[in-house]
Amino acid sequence: MKARRLALLAEGRFTPLDAKTAVGMLRYRPQQVVAVVDSTSAGRTAEACVGVGGAIPVVADLEAASARGADSLMIGVAPQGGGLPEEWRRMVREAITRGWDVLSGLHVFLADDPEFAALAERHGARLIDARRPPATRPVAARRAAALDACVVLTVGSDCNVGKMTAALELVRGLEARGTRAAFVATGQTGIFITDHGVAIDAVVSDFAAGVIEQHVVDAARDADVVVVEGQGALHHPGYSGVALALLHGACPSAMVLCHVAGRERLRKPGAPPSDEDSQPEIRPLSDLVRVYESAASWVSPGTVVAVALNTHGLDDATARHAIQSAARETGLPATDPIRFGAGLLVDAIEAHRASRGGRRATVR
Amino acid sequence: MKARRLALLAEGRFTPLDAKTAVGMLRYRPQQVVAVVDSTSAGRTAEACVGVGGAIPVVADLEAASARGADSLMIGVAPQGGGLPEEWRRMVREAITRGWDVLSGLHVFLADDPEFAALAERHGARLIDARRPPATRPVAARRAAALDACVVLTVGSDCNVGKMTAALELVRGLEARGTRAAFVATGQTGIFITDHGVAIDAVVSDFAAGVIEQHVVDAARDADVVVVEGQGALHHPGYSGVALALLHGACPSAMVLCHVAGRERLRKPGAPPSDEDSQPEIRPLSDLVRVYESAASWVSPGTVVAVALNTHGLDDATARHAIQSAARETGLPATDPIRFGAGLLVDAIEAHRASRGGRRATVR
Repeated sequence: MKARRLALLAEGRFTPLDAKTAVGMLRYRPQQVVAVVDSTSAGRTAEACVGVGGAIPVVADLEAASARGADSLMIGVAPQGGGLPEEWRRMVREAITRGWDVLSGLHVFLADDPEFAALAERHGARLIDARRPPATRPVAARRAAALDACVVLTVGSDCNVGKMTAALELVRGLEARGTRAAFVATGQTGIFITDHGVAIDAVVSDFAAGVIEQHVVDAARDADVVVVEGQGALHHPGYSGVALALLHGACPSAMVLCHVAGRERLRKPGAPPSDEDSQPEIRPLSDLVRVYESAASWVSPGTVVAVALNTHGLDDATARHAIQSAARETGLPATDPIRFGAGLLVDAIEAHRASRGGRRATVR
Repeated sequence: MKARRLALLAEGRFTPLDAKTAVGMLRYRPQQVVAVVDSTSAGRTAEACVGVGGAIPVVADLEAASARGADSLMIGVAPQGGGLPEEWRRMVREAITRGWDVLSGLHVFLADDPEFAALAERHGARLIDARRPPATRPVAARRAAALDACVVLTVGSDCNVGKMTAALELVRGLEARGTRAAFVATGQTGIFITDHGVAIDAVVSDFAAGVIEQHVVDAARDADVVVVEGQGALHHPGYSGVALALLHGACPSAMVLCHVAGRERLRKPGAPPSDEDSQPEIRPLSDLVRVYESAASWVSPGTVVAVALNTHGLDDATARHAIQSAARETGLPATDPIRFGAGLLVDAIEAHRASRGGRRATVR
């Protein structure tokens, strides 16, 4: 991404669970963010609202963001269904009129909206749709299983549990130890953070696995470990197809299982927790390990080697207790990579690579 | 579909495995077909080439099809990747110039091709793309699991094993016994045959399950059994995501496992059998039963109740032997619904409905 001065649009929804894209940018690209727009939290800091972003201010409108020097607007949330809420159209219109570029990860493409397109043309603004799929139509064929690089996929107990964050922290941790690691972004936030990747959920379903395979094969050219950002969950009624396409396109030899401590049911995006009693239950972590390993084995064997537990909102003692429970239940190393660092995850991947290298040598 | 006089384009590929769409139309809508276009088989009958279609002639070009009274061209094959082979563009162009409508199930939409669109406009021809996805963006949420109607899904050991045919024969068999049955087409051939449905493989992957759920819920309004055409296979590297989205969108309580007798490896579309030694092996049928039931259970329990074995090309004695083996291996009723009729499949579904009704009554 060119150096930008971003205003992140999160109107009425600037919370850690609803504003995934905004929170991701604040955590990994804060130097590009000058303000968050949410009139319901205006006057507070990003840190106070979502736990990251330090003193970056939350402001009421684009005028206030402009006063902070903003030159681009990024849609900071990804509503289920992927459409643009009517009340936000006004703000997008205003940003374009100011000549700002607008960056979006919505399923509905801004550049395909005749009104926005005409306005952007007139004001010299660019409309950047991160979710627009590639024009290619590759069909996956287990090519990623034949790579020398170790492919790692973060998998989850639900949407929105920290699969992208675990993957990014793992890459950072591996690089800190001198391992050549690459990150494959598969969702809009990851793409905004790393400036490449593909939003798998926006790819036509026949080619979802094939597009991922291509990205993994490309990433493996310059890396010994390719860490692929997971999406959805195999037992999620809406998104299981995306999760399986990703698993069979990437052919990971190692997986990291991600979960939010205490979450017992699939979360309905945008709904308050009280609304979730009718949502499907999340299976025990040890079941999930079996489910992911079994589904991987249909195409190429893969092992869950660690658990990344999102303990956001818990105190340290409770977090430690939750992590110990997860480790005991699964028999796997477990940690919260944000709270306690990714060291344990890196250890698990390096141990997996060592054992894999050994197995390969034996097989030869 | 309006009454048409179709020429089916299958140039150079008019075989049972390559010309799925043509064969499906010849089997279920022969009254709409006046000729098949394949210069390499011209002079023969459809029946002689693919075993269905009776005396419908194979002709060398559109001129000859026109002499038979053709007024529309249907693309009769679905090449992997879904593009339009360059050599066929000429024929599509010619059909449009003749003022014929052109019906296509390719991933590349004819109506989006500027040359074809302009030509069609000039000659009053319509370009009908059966694979164009709906504009809606529904996310599946297990709604199909709550229906009173019994939902049946045909699942497979591979692509192109007879899932659509088994589903259509099952619907016909149920209706013949007086059961109100509906068919949900999920691929281009099924859509051409029944004039409705959705090509799930062309839907953006986030909404693939949701679109199917909507179709199943709609179909259940006027049916006691909804039979959904399966796609792909859960262990197919390229198409497993489509298969799982379909399974979790439709939430079938019963599944029929479809397989081609003697096929041992996943078939590479378009490749000769000799090319297939490097293709992944197909698991034993009993394993596949476990795989499908296990994957269904992640969202909503479903049972494989019968096996539909495609014995095309075998003599009757060998076919009977293959069917007996499949039945013994799985412990399930098995038949080839084309060769021996769908009676056994209908019996299996009716038995399933009876036991399900009983269970429901008990639970209440």
